[in-house]
Amino acid sequence: MRVFGIDCGTEITGFGVVETVETGTIRVICQASGAIRLARTKPLPVRLAELHQVLSTELERWQPEVVAIEEVFYSVNAKSALKLGQVRGVALLAAAQRQLPVAEYAPLSIKSSVVGYGLAKKEQVQFMVARLLNLPQLPEPPDVADALAIAICHIHTAQTIALQAARA
Amino acid sequence: MRVFGIDCGTEITGFGVVETVETGTIRVICQASGAIRLARTKPLPVRLAELHQVLSTELERWQPEVVAIEEVFYSVNAKSALKLGQVRGVALLAAAQRQLPVAEYAPLSIKSSVVGYGLAKKEQVQFMVARLLNLPQLPEPPDVADALAIAICHIHTAQTIALQAARA
Repeated sequence: MRVFGIDCGTEITGFGVVETVETGTIRVICQASGAIRLARTKPLPVRLAELHQVLSTELERWQPEVVAIEEVFYSVNAKSALKLGQVRGVALLAAAQRQLPVAEYAPLSIKSSVVGYGLAKKEQVQFMVARLLNLPQLPEPPDVADALAIAICHIHTAQTIALQAARA
Repeated sequence: MRVFGIDCGTEITGFGVVETVETGTIRVICQASGAIRLARTKPLPVRLAELHQVLSTELERWQPEVVAIEEVFYSVNAKSALKLGQVRGVALLAAAQRQLPVAEYAPLSIKSSVVGYGLAKKEQVQFMVARLLNLPQLPEPPDVADALAIAICHIHTAQTIALQAARA
């Protein structure tokens, strides 16, 4: 299974492609990752078009089976939520234009899935993502680690569902 | 000048194409308008893709010089702001993908521009939009009237700026 994780942000949007490889036990490997920085100097519509362009190109290149994205967190204020929503809408659109299903996970589930603790800090997520994916160094910026963590969370969830189905 | 107004909403997004025609005095006429209803039963990414498709088709058909959109109003809560942001991001993207400039107007300015009163009600906006554009009936749903009002607001603003420049 190949999963494309997206961590939406108003300044930096991280993405990461994680794939499961069966070699006796199931391993996850990182195929690609990156951060899309939205230039503050350009008008918002232009920034959204650049984001859409990069995400579309990467989805086309990696041909994932599913896109995983973070559920939003309503503790932010309305102004931040609107800004984040604009970015998130474009990311969801890029997935839908390729007929890809989109899975959403709460921040707590994502952190629990990679660190084992829902209130883990950014550094702990970076550290555990690097260990799980055997990366030579910590994914930077943290937005990239978050995107990879979302993809890993989807794989873990899918594996759990498959195991439960096999037992039933 | 041909303006494409968009009134973004989480359930209904209205659009309207307004053009100025010089016949002695400047008149505004409505070229087209419509409401895009997002089916609640479909997943959000699919709804956003449908919205993007319709807006892109209409922008292509009408070849406006500019897109006018409402500035958002932060009195809504974070959950609503996120939902509205997702729709708005897709609308801004459709404009940017056609290299169209986007003008934003505050709700108060839009209502003042068509009704002469910033706190006008929906029915008053529908009534005045129908009069200004010589429409045979009130634009329905109100989202369509709002989209036409945004386009009219842009034309009035551009005319004021042109008049000031001519005097200076």
